[in-house]
Amino acid sequence: MPVLVMKFGGTSVATLDRIRRAAKRVGVEVAKGYDVIVIVSAMSGKTNELVGWVNETSPLYDAREYDAVVSSGENVTAGLMALTLQEMDIPARSWQGWQVPVRTTSAHSAARIEEIPPENIRAKFAEGMQVAVVAGFQGVSPEGRITTLGRGGSDTTAVAFAAAFEAERCDIYTDVDGVYTTDPRVSSKARKLDRIAFEEMLELASLGAKVLQTRSVELAMRYKVKLRVLSSFEEQSDDAGTLVCDEEEIMESNVVAGVAFSRDEAKMTMVSVADRPGIAASIFTALSDAGVNVDMIVQNIAEEGRTDMTWSCPVDQVKRAERAISAAKESGTINFQELIADEDVAKVSVVGIGMRSHTGVAAKMFQVLRDEGINIKVITTSEIKISVLIDRKYMELAVQALHDAFELDKAA
Amino acid sequence: MPVLVMKFGGTSVATLDRIRRAAKRVGVEVAKGYDVIVIVSAMSGKTNELVGWVNETSPLYDAREYDAVVSSGENVTAGLMALTLQEMDIPARSWQGWQVPVRTTSAHSAARIEEIPPENIRAKFAEGMQVAVVAGFQGVSPEGRITTLGRGGSDTTAVAFAAAFEAERCDIYTDVDGVYTTDPRVSSKARKLDRIAFEEMLELASLGAKVLQTRSVELAMRYKVKLRVLSSFEEQSDDAGTLVCDEEEIMESNVVAGVAFSRDEAKMTMVSVADRPGIAASIFTALSDAGVNVDMIVQNIAEEGRTDMTWSCPVDQVKRAERAISAAKESGTINFQELIADEDVAKVSVVGIGMRSHTGVAAKMFQVLRDEGINIKVITTSEIKISVLIDRKYMELAVQALHDAFELDKAA
Repeated sequence: MPVLVMKFGGTSVATLDRIRRAAKRVGVEVAKGYDVIVIVSAMSGKTNELVGWVNETSPLYDAREYDAVVSSGENVTAGLMALTLQEMDIPARSWQGWQVPVRTTSAHSAARIEEIPPENIRAKFAEGMQVAVVAGFQGVSPEGRITTLGRGGSDTTAVAFAAAFEAERCDIYTDVDGVYTTDPRVSSKARKLDRIAFEEMLELASLGAKVLQTRSVELAMRYKVKLRVLSSFEEQSDDAGTLVCDEEEIMESNVVAGVAFSRDEAKMTMVSVADRPGIAASIFTALSDAGVNVDMIVQNIAEEGRTDMTWSCPVDQVKRAERAISAAKESGTINFQELIADEDVAKVSVVGIGMRSHTGVAAKMFQVLRDEGINIKVITTSEIKISVLIDRKYMELAVQALHDAFELDKAA
Repeated sequence: MPVLVMKFGGTSVATLDRIRRAAKRVGVEVAKGYDVIVIVSAMSGKTNELVGWVNETSPLYDAREYDAVVSSGENVTAGLMALTLQEMDIPARSWQGWQVPVRTTSAHSAARIEEIPPENIRAKFAEGMQVAVVAGFQGVSPEGRITTLGRGGSDTTAVAFAAAFEAERCDIYTDVDGVYTTDPRVSSKARKLDRIAFEEMLELASLGAKVLQTRSVELAMRYKVKLRVLSSFEEQSDDAGTLVCDEEEIMESNVVAGVAFSRDEAKMTMVSVADRPGIAASIFTALSDAGVNVDMIVQNIAEEGRTDMTWSCPVDQVKRAERAISAAKESGTINFQELIADEDVAKVSVVGIGMRSHTGVAAKMFQVLRDEGINIKVITTSEIKISVLIDRKYMELAVQALHDAFELDKAA
């Protein structure tokens, strides 16, 4: 029988009532003839409680013990979901990560899934079990200790099971009803997309649209797992939500799929750097070692052996970046005149696989911003994305204007 | 190095502060040179919360899923305890039941420990680990599923580890400071015992002194594990609490070690039963099938082919017993005139291994009760125990009078 993977996030299993509602959705798919693998998160709030206890006990905790404690939330939901399904006369049982087993690396709290042998669960399906409920977010290391995959890891668990079981689809039930052309709270014209390409979703996920964990989208793309994002709080038809899929499966699409934004950015400029081969490596190694997540980088043309270097990073990492750069200056690694931080910027991006074949998207974007009187501070581009840094106060205006100009409120 | 097992119950690990206090006690024993195995319960209240969720989800739950859910509380405490010890620079790690592994039968929710291979933990001790923190109450079945040992099972886990590791002693930290000659709330003269024999503890445990789970005492007796009961809320000296040990290790002892009682008993009498071979079997099979825990049984001498049959059971099982007996009468299995239930009785017992060699204890007990004007309704005896059923309103009086008469306030 075909396998379907269904993943329910923390808000979708927050109470016994919500678990029942989720179980009813599972029942609908079982009735269609699927063998269903359900991946569950911890009841919302539980993981935060456990993380809080660990942090209070041991601020520099042993990640192996962190994982042993924090993984327990998913185990509770898995058992309760199995019991709920049994009450509905659906043969089901729960599996903890080590029982499957979900084999991962030993990188505790940020482990990667290496292998999911499907034999144990397949054998149960063959015996008549209809639903395998699996605790998400967790696995077991080669040393036999419990690992976790990092925040949002249950999405990754779901996609990895879909790949291992060659599932027909992986449905991610969450508290939004799909992926939008932009955040509906910023533009009232935001439209839910029926389909979006993996590459577009990856850009949107990493740009701040918090629907899916980036790693899960990467994994889905690599293994060609059809991902569907949909709401657990609405009655669902077969084509509800948004399907994240291969671009070949999208017949018609707008050149631009969506407008993403990231509010809390900072722009830092190092003025009059003594230019020499390897200077960029010195600067960005120092920042990386200090744990600064550098995003955009721009280097001006050098004049008379000196250049300006600009980068962006999250605004709450500015102090850390300043300390790292000061230390590098004192040690003589870097020579520059001044370091200027602009902590009032935001990033706005247009994303779409159509850009590969359509020219003029960048030009149109810059015109729209110019017409609104918005100054562009930094530009970066990829094959399917153009990002700009602008003053934060213009962020909403820019998103709305771009959404209008690219007619994202209309389907292709 | 010698091994010490230390078990902390739910109230002893109810908060992060209490876990720290317990960890300090562990540190004291580590400093003495012990390899310590710490067995932890769930933080108090947690198991009840989980059991509540399971019952609400599925009143006739699958015990395998019950175990998967309910065992998670101990896992959290185990991880937090390991982290707390690490913060004190004591090398420690946590172990869940399946990791040790604690091999049990497949009798979910009431599993029995079959084997605890000590190799894994011993290897870690050899590498320099000083404390193994083990989640109590749980194990793993031959099928690889999580099992639990039933309420109070962490005591049993502790004793089983002490046996498997040939521990010098098994210290049970709880919210009382030891085993008393009787409940201090009933007699202000109750005295804490320094030592008590396994057999005495077994009688006291099953008679309602809720200090230790009966099964853990049985196991300790079989494997000659020295058990010490002591408070986690007081500073402890080396001879604190009560040592439960082999009777040979008790030099001097009172003939009677303690007075136990059980408040909520009922006496049921079946009047004028048609006597025939096998009638007792018919009655008590019917009661057992109905889940009635029959305690004392008395049969009067039969006259003219009819007899009276009396038994005691917990007062909240009277209705169930009546239904079972009525059904047996209707089906013709049993023939009797009347069933009388007395729901206002209590059981009082004196317990002591000294009774084996001293005569006259029963006579003295009956005299004391007579002198107080207390009527005895049923009597049963074992080698080291005499129990009587009396009117509940006299229970405290009987306990106090017996405690005085056997001079239990004075050490031997």
